[in-house]
Amino acid sequence: MDIKQEALKVHKELRGKLDIVGKMKVEDRHDLSIAYTPGVAEPCLKIAEDEDKVYDYTMKGNTVAIVTNGTAVLGLGDIGAKAGLPVMEGKALLFKEFGGINAFPICIDSKEPDEIIKTVKLIAPSFGGINLEDIKAPECFYIEKRLKEELDIPVFHDDQHGTAIVVLAGLYNALKLVGKHIENVNIVINGAGSAGTAICKLLLKAGAKNIVMCDKNGAVVEGDTSLTKPQQELAKITNRNMEKGNLKEIIKGKDVFIGVSAPGVVNKDMVSSMNKDSIVFAMANPTPEIMPDLAKDGGARIVATGRSDFPNQINNVLVFPGIFKGALEVRASEINEEMKLAAAKGIANLISDDELNEEYIIPNALDKSVAESVASEVKRIAKKMGIARI
Amino acid sequence: MDIKQEALKVHKELRGKLDIVGKMKVEDRHDLSIAYTPGVAEPCLKIAEDEDKVYDYTMKGNTVAIVTNGTAVLGLGDIGAKAGLPVMEGKALLFKEFGGINAFPICIDSKEPDEIIKTVKLIAPSFGGINLEDIKAPECFYIEKRLKEELDIPVFHDDQHGTAIVVLAGLYNALKLVGKHIENVNIVINGAGSAGTAICKLLLKAGAKNIVMCDKNGAVVEGDTSLTKPQQELAKITNRNMEKGNLKEIIKGKDVFIGVSAPGVVNKDMVSSMNKDSIVFAMANPTPEIMPDLAKDGGARIVATGRSDFPNQINNVLVFPGIFKGALEVRASEINEEMKLAAAKGIANLISDDELNEEYIIPNALDKSVAESVASEVKRIAKKMGIARI
Repeated sequence: MDIKQEALKVHKELRGKLDIVGKMKVEDRHDLSIAYTPGVAEPCLKIAEDEDKVYDYTMKGNTVAIVTNGTAVLGLGDIGAKAGLPVMEGKALLFKEFGGINAFPICIDSKEPDEIIKTVKLIAPSFGGINLEDIKAPECFYIEKRLKEELDIPVFHDDQHGTAIVVLAGLYNALKLVGKHIENVNIVINGAGSAGTAICKLLLKAGAKNIVMCDKNGAVVEGDTSLTKPQQELAKITNRNMEKGNLKEIIKGKDVFIGVSAPGVVNKDMVSSMNKDSIVFAMANPTPEIMPDLAKDGGARIVATGRSDFPNQINNVLVFPGIFKGALEVRASEINEEMKLAAAKGIANLISDDELNEEYIIPNALDKSVAESVASEVKRIAKKMGIARI
Repeated sequence: MDIKQEALKVHKELRGKLDIVGKMKVEDRHDLSIAYTPGVAEPCLKIAEDEDKVYDYTMKGNTVAIVTNGTAVLGLGDIGAKAGLPVMEGKALLFKEFGGINAFPICIDSKEPDEIIKTVKLIAPSFGGINLEDIKAPECFYIEKRLKEELDIPVFHDDQHGTAIVVLAGLYNALKLVGKHIENVNIVINGAGSAGTAICKLLLKAGAKNIVMCDKNGAVVEGDTSLTKPQQELAKITNRNMEKGNLKEIIKGKDVFIGVSAPGVVNKDMVSSMNKDSIVFAMANPTPEIMPDLAKDGGARIVATGRSDFPNQINNVLVFPGIFKGALEVRASEINEEMKLAAAKGIANLISDDELNEEYIIPNALDKSVAESVASEVKRIAKKMGIARI
């Protein structure tokens, strides 16, 4: 049976990948009087007196809403809120398996950003954090910005920041191997959607100075009035040499290619036109911008993809369980840029200098110890910055 | 340790009574490719083609939202959305323990009915049913009515209908014991809030002809302009003899007293003024309208309360797990009056004529077989009425 048929079969047998279960039994009158009336009135009253006590007496502090409207699900596009549910359940499963976090899918039947914002704000009392997922750009930027401003719990758009963090983690180790420094390398990012934008911003924050963003119309250049508003913002802080042209022209002489775009848009010659010891992160899924063997033939020294069947898999599961675990454990009010950088360092540092090689720049996606390391880095920074509430 | 201290301790240790767990493990690359990418794309695509397939491939069909805004939590009143969370978690625990249903607390931070309606509609894709809980009257009536009209999944306000069903179940058996018929008995219901209103309507539907509703201002009489709008509606279909006066006057000569009101509002003399073989359901919690021994001294033949430490506990847990289980299993589009009557009959009939006695008119609240019986009655009626979708 191929993977598609097997996935359908398993999903149909399970009818949902999640189960909500009690942490205590209700077998007798005493149990009932503790779990429910009359005993339950006591924690209610404590929270009514001091609403921060909700973290002491309920599941809020370890529960994340996975919020989508189904407009950018995997590579499938706008398939609707209901059709996004299997992905959100899968994500929730990973939250629990890797981070020990309760996560629940909230599929919102709306494409109106203001409606989505309002809905998330109104249901926030049950949740300790909000993971935005598979919401299309540019709406996702506005939704995230408003929610971050208006909620006092962490809000994190994983398609943006989870991807950016794991890319940066891989890049730290790749650069270490080739002996280059993030401040000096020339980087091209192909794909100026939500992931590309977030990667760009985080690399800048990490010290990168020379980034050119490309999309299907070529290099993003300041002053181009056809750009979307978020792209115009990016154009001001990238491509300071005002390079123009398509990807084939822009990739020449670059040290690093980061693709979050489309299958096959990079060929061997394009890789050959890059600088020596080039680094290629070809993360289009399931078919990368260029297949690893071809990129190597073209002269790339290090290649990473989004796939589990090649070395160096760039997979968000290395990030979101740990970053939320850390933020929730110290009750941080947000997940900020410093915490993201700390998470990237935390992941990169899991590979010792002895182990580090061209085929092993990033930990295995299934390594369940990663989340704990990420969480502890995130907690350290949150405490240092004074945004930890416990 | 008393129950209050123990409840606080248990809640603090557990930090939430619910756990969201995976129904499959993610240990290797193969698991990940089935639960998440790339395999998960297949069920997504099936649902995108035909949205009813969401019931085949996700948890929706066995998942209920427990929706509150915290305005009428237990007897505590308006304590806010966060402070309601321990109760909602407890309710979810009972949904799973008694009905095998996944239930998740949605605490909505709003007192605006239209905002609450909109929020529930927007998040409905993840849920197979909506259990409204602890929302104050009269807003709860409007919220329920609109959601029932506008959603294609069952919407059920448990404080109203769960209570009404279990009262009717108990009343069926009580009347059988005393040899009276629902069509002929004189009934007074004290408390004209959400529970009292729902009880009144369901008893009328079950054939009762002579009901007088009372609230703290005395009998609800048609033409009284001080009544709320829902009370005015009720006044048209109850109290056809236009009885006026306070509860002490109204209770005289009645066969059945049903209290969903306040502690101690009935005394022994008032019970003595009722007809022979009177039935007293004193359900104020934790202190009933009259204590059972006092009611018996006053001449009541059958007494029921909301408490587990007296015989005949009127407890909604006998209803909501089973009625949702039935509705979800046949994918009914609603929970209608006929299904509620069937649920009441289903509960009453669990006690055989041999077993039936003054101290045993209703099954034990902890009897986990009740839900299955209720569900099977509900399914039978849903199929008969053509509202079962499978």
